[in-house]
Amino acid sequence: MAVRGLIQSVRLHPQKFSDLEEKICTPDQLRPKPDNSALVFGKYFTDHMLEVSWDSKRGWAKPVISPMHNLQLHPGAKVLHYAIELFEGMKAYRGEDGCLRLFRPDKNMARMLSTAKRSSLPTFDAEEMIKCVKRLIQIDKEWVPYSTTSSLYIRPTFIATDPSLGVASPNEALLYVLLCPVGPYFTSGFKPISLMADPQYVRSWPGGCGAMKMGANYAPTIYIQKQSELLGHQQVLWLYGADHQLTEVGTMNIFLFMLNENGERELVTPPLDGLILPGVTRLSLLELAREWKEFRVVERTITMAEVIQAHEEKRLLEIFGAGTACVVCPVSSISYQGREYNIPRSEPSLSQRFLKTMSDIHYGRVQHPWAVDI
Amino acid sequence: MAVRGLIQSVRLHPQKFSDLEEKICTPDQLRPKPDNSALVFGKYFTDHMLEVSWDSKRGWAKPVISPMHNLQLHPGAKVLHYAIELFEGMKAYRGEDGCLRLFRPDKNMARMLSTAKRSSLPTFDAEEMIKCVKRLIQIDKEWVPYSTTSSLYIRPTFIATDPSLGVASPNEALLYVLLCPVGPYFTSGFKPISLMADPQYVRSWPGGCGAMKMGANYAPTIYIQKQSELLGHQQVLWLYGADHQLTEVGTMNIFLFMLNENGERELVTPPLDGLILPGVTRLSLLELAREWKEFRVVERTITMAEVIQAHEEKRLLEIFGAGTACVVCPVSSISYQGREYNIPRSEPSLSQRFLKTMSDIHYGRVQHPWAVDI
Repeated sequence: MAVRGLIQSVRLHPQKFSDLEEKICTPDQLRPKPDNSALVFGKYFTDHMLEVSWDSKRGWAKPVISPMHNLQLHPGAKVLHYAIELFEGMKAYRGEDGCLRLFRPDKNMARMLSTAKRSSLPTFDAEEMIKCVKRLIQIDKEWVPYSTTSSLYIRPTFIATDPSLGVASPNEALLYVLLCPVGPYFTSGFKPISLMADPQYVRSWPGGCGAMKMGANYAPTIYIQKQSELLGHQQVLWLYGADHQLTEVGTMNIFLFMLNENGERELVTPPLDGLILPGVTRLSLLELAREWKEFRVVERTITMAEVIQAHEEKRLLEIFGAGTACVVCPVSSISYQGREYNIPRSEPSLSQRFLKTMSDIHYGRVQHPWAVDI
Repeated sequence: MAVRGLIQSVRLHPQKFSDLEEKICTPDQLRPKPDNSALVFGKYFTDHMLEVSWDSKRGWAKPVISPMHNLQLHPGAKVLHYAIELFEGMKAYRGEDGCLRLFRPDKNMARMLSTAKRSSLPTFDAEEMIKCVKRLIQIDKEWVPYSTTSSLYIRPTFIATDPSLGVASPNEALLYVLLCPVGPYFTSGFKPISLMADPQYVRSWPGGCGAMKMGANYAPTIYIQKQSELLGHQQVLWLYGADHQLTEVGTMNIFLFMLNENGERELVTPPLDGLILPGVTRLSLLELAREWKEFRVVERTITMAEVIQAHEEKRLLEIFGAGTACVVCPVSSISYQGREYNIPRSEPSLSQRFLKTMSDIHYGRVQHPWAVDI
């Protein structure tokens, strides 16, 4: 990767995809592939990985694909102390026609670049990066599950590696890409999940980095996620502000399908106000719905009081999450201030329709410009 | 380390300081020590490090001291994706009497434990941990600078290492300790520094983790810190809320010495309301000042409007930061909303008095229970 326009200020050795170096596994280095039924999210990794290193003096080095291996990191590396790290999540699918496809990788790379800038990490050429990722997938193509409920999860990761404890911009960094065959994100499969909404915990705030895919946004959520699991829920619905605005679910954006006070059907999702991650699945569902023109599509702030009122007035049709890992995931209940609100599921179900439409694109049952051949 | 009560739930092999394993450098592995004049914060590391690994099945392993080396980390390790990591900072000093001393290590270990809990990392026995750190310093004792303006910085670090991309509590972790000989934190030495206060950037917020020493609190600040440097400032003064409350300086807590509206001398510092790090130096200065009983000592919220009013009415005597890295550091100016406010320095200077009092304790010129023999 690397390449023209790749480097923030230094570009002594601009690199191109054509410079990609490939060190392929010997037959004895190849690992057995897990059964599709055994796929747990992010547990199995493929045979190869992609790496590109950067330093402030020489710029980007040549991209290298090599057998999956441990990283050698200085214990003082900035990523281990100040969390200078970011990631992306996207997927490759094996179509029913046998072709492998990526879903809107340009959107993930654009977000990765904006996160890199906010993280004081260098920028790069997104198109060259996508070429390198495609090549990595081609090499490990047998790892893309032969299944239309599974896929190959792609995890670009970007970390600051210089061994210095000063709290300052990094001078050395490593961008790498891992591949994982994955099944459904939640162990419950495509079954609806229950959410815990507790206003005492706040994921992000104005003036912060909630819209960035930085590792730093996740660490503070793990403990709360665990609390929600101990109380029997799968995920946390993060609220913000004195009026308990819905923001996102940490691994998903949130959507509400409801009748508004005029009785019109409305798809509502919180706006991109800096508090939530600008999800690629979120964007895609909004674009699909606006194309369908069958109901109102609204990006606006929505509070728990509004949700409860709609629930009581039987105007709530469906709530679901949307993200790369789960694609679309219906919500069965929300626990809030000591009460459990059971969420209905409209018939026909909008979340099911979204899931089918997305799956048709992912698995090549329809031709769509969002699906990019590998 | 490890030990009785060390493990959250599993304690299959409880370990003690007496189990500490030592692998000492061979003479050819020893590295040259930098000149005291060349000491840049966090750039030089000593010959040895301490490591203790943990996993959820077996609990804590034996603590090991070994030659400084790179870590071998799986590229899917949780620390590299979700920033499950925390650290501490403390110092060892070579006294004028030749003795080596730590400063209040119990306070740092207590804070490390509270951060570990919030980070879903396991807890440990603080006393056994301090014993291991003392032993590490004894082994590398020649690295403690022979200087009363330098010291040995101690960096306990705790990272989640399990190779799984699920956003969940870690099952594997590594606690390690690095040592660095250090001079003054700021390259300007003990000279006053200038701060940028820009309310559009917010470090922490109610319901978040601003009071924890998690890596995640630092990543979002690097870019803003860089902006402040480009504008000619050394550090960022983080504000919070519509009324622009002063919170902290990222690497330091903030103190104001001023005349209140009744003309009484007052030392003011923001309260431990969850937005700021509970600094050990902060605590120590408050305890010293309360012991002196010479002026009022107040922990309260203070806004930029109050600071500016005090500045205009010539009631502002001094502003300074306090933290382990810098100990006490006077502030010369604050840039805020397009204006530069020059901060006076009272004579005699309170920050200088604090620095001298702390140094006397650090370097053994006075005997004090805060200084702990190594």
